[in-house]
Amino acid sequence: MKIALAQLNYHIGNFEANNQKIIQAIQTAKSAGADLVVFAELAIGGYPAKDLLRNLSYLTQCEQSIAAIADACQGIACIIGAPIRNQDGEGKALYNAALLLEDGNVSQTVKKSLLPDYDVFDEYRYFEPNKQVNCIPFRGKTIALTVCEDLWDDDGPNSYVGDIMLELAKENPDLIINIAASPFSYTHFESRKNVLSRNVIKANAPLIYVNQVGAHADIIFDGRSLAFNRKAEIIEELNAFDEDLQFVELEKDLTAERTITISTKSEIALIHDALILGLRDYFKKSGFKKAVLGLSGGLDSALVAALACEAIGAENVLSVLMPSIYSSDHSLKDALDLVKNTGCAHQIVPIKDIANAFETGLADTFAGKAPDTTEENIQARARGTILMAISNKFGNILLNTSNKSEAAVGYGTLYGDMAGSISVIGDVYKTQAYQLANYINRDQEIIPINTIVKPPSAELRPDQKDSDSLPPYDILDAILFQLIEMEKSASELVNLGFEEALVQRISKLLNNAEFKRFQAPPILRVSPKAFGSGRAMPLVAKYPF
Amino acid sequence: MKIALAQLNYHIGNFEANNQKIIQAIQTAKSAGADLVVFAELAIGGYPAKDLLRNLSYLTQCEQSIAAIADACQGIACIIGAPIRNQDGEGKALYNAALLLEDGNVSQTVKKSLLPDYDVFDEYRYFEPNKQVNCIPFRGKTIALTVCEDLWDDDGPNSYVGDIMLELAKENPDLIINIAASPFSYTHFESRKNVLSRNVIKANAPLIYVNQVGAHADIIFDGRSLAFNRKAEIIEELNAFDEDLQFVELEKDLTAERTITISTKSEIALIHDALILGLRDYFKKSGFKKAVLGLSGGLDSALVAALACEAIGAENVLSVLMPSIYSSDHSLKDALDLVKNTGCAHQIVPIKDIANAFETGLADTFAGKAPDTTEENIQARARGTILMAISNKFGNILLNTSNKSEAAVGYGTLYGDMAGSISVIGDVYKTQAYQLANYINRDQEIIPINTIVKPPSAELRPDQKDSDSLPPYDILDAILFQLIEMEKSASELVNLGFEEALVQRISKLLNNAEFKRFQAPPILRVSPKAFGSGRAMPLVAKYPF
Repeated sequence: MKIALAQLNYHIGNFEANNQKIIQAIQTAKSAGADLVVFAELAIGGYPAKDLLRNLSYLTQCEQSIAAIADACQGIACIIGAPIRNQDGEGKALYNAALLLEDGNVSQTVKKSLLPDYDVFDEYRYFEPNKQVNCIPFRGKTIALTVCEDLWDDDGPNSYVGDIMLELAKENPDLIINIAASPFSYTHFESRKNVLSRNVIKANAPLIYVNQVGAHADIIFDGRSLAFNRKAEIIEELNAFDEDLQFVELEKDLTAERTITISTKSEIALIHDALILGLRDYFKKSGFKKAVLGLSGGLDSALVAALACEAIGAENVLSVLMPSIYSSDHSLKDALDLVKNTGCAHQIVPIKDIANAFETGLADTFAGKAPDTTEENIQARARGTILMAISNKFGNILLNTSNKSEAAVGYGTLYGDMAGSISVIGDVYKTQAYQLANYINRDQEIIPINTIVKPPSAELRPDQKDSDSLPPYDILDAILFQLIEMEKSASELVNLGFEEALVQRISKLLNNAEFKRFQAPPILRVSPKAFGSGRAMPLVAKYPF
Repeated sequence: MKIALAQLNYHIGNFEANNQKIIQAIQTAKSAGADLVVFAELAIGGYPAKDLLRNLSYLTQCEQSIAAIADACQGIACIIGAPIRNQDGEGKALYNAALLLEDGNVSQTVKKSLLPDYDVFDEYRYFEPNKQVNCIPFRGKTIALTVCEDLWDDDGPNSYVGDIMLELAKENPDLIINIAASPFSYTHFESRKNVLSRNVIKANAPLIYVNQVGAHADIIFDGRSLAFNRKAEIIEELNAFDEDLQFVELEKDLTAERTITISTKSEIALIHDALILGLRDYFKKSGFKKAVLGLSGGLDSALVAALACEAIGAENVLSVLMPSIYSSDHSLKDALDLVKNTGCAHQIVPIKDIANAFETGLADTFAGKAPDTTEENIQARARGTILMAISNKFGNILLNTSNKSEAAVGYGTLYGDMAGSISVIGDVYKTQAYQLANYINRDQEIIPINTIVKPPSAELRPDQKDSDSLPPYDILDAILFQLIEMEKSASELVNLGFEEALVQRISKLLNNAEFKRFQAPPILRVSPKAFGSGRAMPLVAKYPF
């Protein structure tokens, strides 16, 4: 039995484009003599479709797509993920299903049993879980067909009651197929591999795993679909961050010894590739071509500019330099060096007169009050307004340039440098931003060396340095990682050996900035715990914890 | 058996204050000779605590609070909601439980079976559902103790598999108790009454229902706890939007005929009271006293100013008038009339020179380009920056003044008039805003009549009117209500008789403004479907549907 793994990039709600792509893959697979082509979870309609799953037109178009794709399966079958209606008269309106389509019909339907509802996942919002699991027959073989988390047998606070594969293994399947929509994070490939391997061993059967690829604002699917032999060795790995179509033979490849080497890109290379796909798909799927960003001469905006130039082409990126009276001499030079190195367009719009106009306008209101962060924020908001004006006038999408460390502690101005339609490095800590800059410079200097080596500064008052207000970034990031990614409480951090006063201070800053992050742009997610829908915190609670 | 219904306003994570309040109610009930005092769902820790439920310190403090409250129950028992740990070794880390506390111990534990996961609810994110239901014994009586949605036996897309009360009724309970955290919407009291009545009939037993009261940023609990006799007649109704403590006798009151009349406030009066509580609690629970807002002379900002003066006192409200060259003569007068009527402070900060400074600064960049909405947005963002500067300088919280109609169609400037820490009327359609203004003026003119009767205008270009860009608000709001609250697709609206081209246009505006609303402040929720966490839409999907 020859099986095609079809790893495609879907656009939520764009049925015409998705169907065309799916049917094309079926035809290619058929020409290659395949018996079966396997697509990802919720390939029909796209994932995460969120409350579109409650929209009747959307569901009707899902059903029409299933029919059209089934019609395209003549002399070949496909397995594909789709939302289907719950006809049982009670429970949630939908099931998250894997369908076997052949000769114009839906010949088998397997509903997802274990529905993720943690971090960015909210599948209980839409789907009723399946209660009764069985293998399906296909051309004389017994297939344990499962949907993504059905195989998730990890322990911990997000674990499930029940083990689907232990049930399915009783039927001695010839093959496990798992269709997935499993988002990228820089730690996730390892845990995914481990979960899949354990299931191979449990069922003593080879496994085919087909993931989505592509980004949908915050969430990035990395692809990397896999095939395992019966010994739980990986015998096929599809592209990371790109579409791919590969074939395996059940009787030959899936029973053979391992012959391939798993790709071993570094963590930072994977983050880089994820951000490129995230940016590229954001523009493509929202129908925009051009970007604008504020370029300060500092690390974060240089990084975002370089990533944007790679993702959508330097000819589509406009960098705006907005010096103030506090900007250092080297800032303008460093920014212009970046412009030269990348080849993007630039504009220079000084903000001195605008900041003065605000201060004059507010002089009576502020009479007798000393300057403070208010005047710093005015500068940041003047810049935000200039960038949005350019965005409004020319249609360029504003890229946000805040990093995760500053978003965490509220070291940024709401409606100022926190503005933008998409946050490019909002899930990248400052220490990782340095690594990313060096990675981007691996072959040639794109991000000016001076931008990397100079002490970071917001340049909103004379001789300001980040280190005036914040602990060194390696210490700050280590504490933030425990509080955010590891979900530790402050007292647990103290037990881990971090200094109590510092932990309390950082924890308080983190909690106090919740209201700012509530209004932040969507953030390209590359870590196991990004700000945004994956980390939901109350706004008026008594903190810290 | 004498039972106290304790309807209290909890602060998420503020264990000290909550425990004190709870123990005080137990002592009051004991002095009055009560056998049992009933508190709301998740009274311990507060609701919605969101990802604090994953924080070890938070959970430890919940457990310490349970112990302290149990100790306070000497010679009296209490029923109270709390998160408790799942000790079963699999499944989600917590249960959402109702505890019976007496003489220092947890004597009974009932876990919630039906977990809401729709609109603003996400309980599957944290809690494992209970699988086995039983009544509990208490002082010779059999009590069907349930948690909120356990009684929810409605049909529809959010319905549950199973009917808890049908199971519990087999034990012939003497009394049903339901502890709840059921948020306000202006339609919800009716459905809540119907659900509770159906359960009374099913079990042929009286029912005590204790709800939370109080607001937590977006979500507002209205209280209105209830007691039903065996005929499903309401024999006690606690305060709406305020704390309350009332007593019923099982053998006397709960078997008697109805003697009370249910409060019959109008929909708009309830919305008004909800917004007042929402605002008041936002300030109280976030530890702030003073507010600032931009006052244009138009309806929306006048309404927000009047509500704020009522909620936190006119002495804590600062209105800022920011006229431009396009402001009409009457605008300043109408705004000053509102200031006079409410007694709040005001400042006047004209924006002409600031807007000019932006246009001068951008003159080279915009050379050869005609004026368009860019210049309108610059004015709105200049105002947003002024308001945020005043907020930063004096510590006043910025109130957002956008209404639901304009938030829906994107008729507002991100980082401009869409700025603010909390949106006061973002869940109030423009047509409802007029009703609310008239309600506020019911005894005397607070909102100037001219503000109510003049045609609405953003005043961002000469002689601009809302009606230049938008259909009349009664038509617009009717279409939006179907698309948002009723979750209809555009094609369903056409079938309902709305004009197709208009529906398509509004639907497109609604979808295209998704990226703006993503960055909007939290919105006080008064409708069954508010923007925010209750309506999750993908950002880069292909629309409309």
